[in-house]
Amino acid sequence: PKRLTAKVIETASNTKKLAQDDPRRVTHSIKVGLALSLVSLFYYYQPLYDNFGVSAMWAVMTVVVVFEFSVGATLGKGLNRALATLLAGALGLAAHHLANLSGHIAATSTFVRFFPKIKARYDYGLLIFILTFSLISVSGFRDAEILELAYKRLSTILIGGSSCVIISILVRPIWAGEDLHNLIALNMEKLANFLEHPSVTEYFKTSENGESNDGKSFLQGYKSVLNSKSNEESLANFARWEPCHGQFNFRHPWNQYLTIGTLTRECAYRIDALSGHLNSDIQAKPEICSKIQEAFTTMSLESGKCLRELACGVRAMTHPSSAKPHISKAKIAAKKLKLLLKSSLWEQDADLLAVIPSVTVASLLIDIVNCTEKIADSVL
Amino acid sequence: PKRLTAKVIETASNTKKLAQDDPRRVTHSIKVGLALSLVSLFYYYQPLYDNFGVSAMWAVMTVVVVFEFSVGATLGKGLNRALATLLAGALGLAAHHLANLSGHIAATSTFVRFFPKIKARYDYGLLIFILTFSLISVSGFRDAEILELAYKRLSTILIGGSSCVIISILVRPIWAGEDLHNLIALNMEKLANFLEHPSVTEYFKTSENGESNDGKSFLQGYKSVLNSKSNEESLANFARWEPCHGQFNFRHPWNQYLTIGTLTRECAYRIDALSGHLNSDIQAKPEICSKIQEAFTTMSLESGKCLRELACGVRAMTHPSSAKPHISKAKIAAKKLKLLLKSSLWEQDADLLAVIPSVTVASLLIDIVNCTEKIADSVL
Repeated sequence: PKRLTAKVIETASNTKKLAQDDPRRVTHSIKVGLALSLVSLFYYYQPLYDNFGVSAMWAVMTVVVVFEFSVGATLGKGLNRALATLLAGALGLAAHHLANLSGHIAATSTFVRFFPKIKARYDYGLLIFILTFSLISVSGFRDAEILELAYKRLSTILIGGSSCVIISILVRPIWAGEDLHNLIALNMEKLANFLEHPSVTEYFKTSENGESNDGKSFLQGYKSVLNSKSNEESLANFARWEPCHGQFNFRHPWNQYLTIGTLTRECAYRIDALSGHLNSDIQAKPEICSKIQEAFTTMSLESGKCLRELACGVRAMTHPSSAKPHISKAKIAAKKLKLLLKSSLWEQDADLLAVIPSVTVASLLIDIVNCTEKIADSVL
Repeated sequence: PKRLTAKVIETASNTKKLAQDDPRRVTHSIKVGLALSLVSLFYYYQPLYDNFGVSAMWAVMTVVVVFEFSVGATLGKGLNRALATLLAGALGLAAHHLANLSGHIAATSTFVRFFPKIKARYDYGLLIFILTFSLISVSGFRDAEILELAYKRLSTILIGGSSCVIISILVRPIWAGEDLHNLIALNMEKLANFLEHPSVTEYFKTSENGESNDGKSFLQGYKSVLNSKSNEESLANFARWEPCHGQFNFRHPWNQYLTIGTLTRECAYRIDALSGHLNSDIQAKPEICSKIQEAFTTMSLESGKCLRELACGVRAMTHPSSAKPHISKAKIAAKKLKLLLKSSLWEQDADLLAVIPSVTVASLLIDIVNCTEKIADSVL
């Protein structure tokens, strides 16, 4: 019983956390319940039931299957479902005496679902096409009143689908486009957080007083950027279905977001390589460290600031003109660092081995500055 | 008409390519057609139709929705569907006079689908639970013979689901586990291809005779490894449903594959950083290059060979004992490289700036050797 209580408490706290992480999840659940109650009226309200009968079942089914988290996903699924039902219904009716054909058409459509572009946008539509086509062509073999049946089914599906779409747009809408927009900005901010973090900017300082172990978990924030590709792509696919809302037009350049996302990820790969080096010890002598330190700090801080400005610009959809100075400051610092490494002062220290980690770190940072510049170019 | 012809030809060649890339896609499509023809018997064969009537529709629907590409996915969906229907049916029958409850339960179940662990394995089951529960609790309001209806529906769903599972296992099965197994090995081989490629191993050589531009596209092979995470995870989820087959037991350590996959990806991030440097020009003097070159080539080649051995070991599920010597050779070369960098010979060349790219490349390669060692540890 004690273990059971502990389990219950753990589950409850997990549930609470899930709801707090994204309160829209609760809203979404309530919206689904609302839509279901609405289409249940087909059963409970006598005049409606007289009209549609058991076909009302299809409205309930459509709601359960079509209602997705974001508006774009719901709209995409709803439109796919409606069009596919219509098309497959027409084709099925036309060919319902050719019952042997149904297996072939279903197999062909199944294969068509493997086309990457079709998979991304019309996968669900094809599924419903296969479903409806099979159902109608086999039912046609038995059912005399197939036309009426088809009409009833189609109209209930349309009603179910449109109630999903209406509720998902009107009641606290969750826009996939907005999510994508925020995700892209957030990812840039995560990289900025890393670059601006004291244990990175003062890498060459803290080595003197070795207390740099706090905030390590904070530094892991960028890791989620590394694997954001599939998430971004599905959001962009959903966003393409969405009508204009807020600051977004119908033909918002969603591909632009994917480009920025890809560049951000490339920058994150470099940061991951850099992060691996930051955890190892510095072997360079203090005098070298203090020499590099200034340029290094400037580069890291300025490219971090630049990314933050760019993220702000993306968020507010304004031209982030203040990002340019940061990037040029970072580039000047990079040049200075290169000069420093070149200068004869170094020759006094013949031990190249000791310098290697510092040089590697510095040159990875130069890479990061270049990546940041690319991101800035694609945003501007 | 000319443009149309071109379009048709293009589509045809695309289709052919899609089929040739993975012939199992064609097999899958035919299998779906087969399963559909099989359950259509419910309509065409009189005694069966007398028994089930329109409920036969549910068998067709189940086949369309449940039949997935791999055995694991089909089994997972089929089991989820059967169990969820059973459970929701029982609950719906018990509560069918409490019609008001249905909205609440549907909303709660919708929320439960957000739990990450449940989403991974039971998402579809919960969808069907909501669907069946809603359908039964609203139908219950109207239908007197609800028990018989529920029995017929459940049995047709079971027949539809089991015919999917049986066909997908017996007719040229496509195992998700095998796919995962091959994907992990293939990813390692892709990294090995990169490390063993002449334009990488002879980086310091080719700089003399600047004809290193061919095979660049070949070098891009590793890029697909960077984004393989979601693919690996879904395959592992499907694989968990699969019964023992070939060399795989039911409780095959699929998590081990995910661990190896993560480490491989980390190594790929380093390779991506390295690849960025390889494209830039070398500024170091020839005599330096020739000094580094030998150790560099050994490191790259040996870690490539090690990865290839490990991949072979994973493929054949044998202990890749021959991988160990390669990794130690690579480590010895890394040590030698470090010593070279330390040696006084370098002092003659005071221009540190010219050495930086070489040092960076070398130390990224040392990173890669370390990553390879980690992969080797996790495989062995």
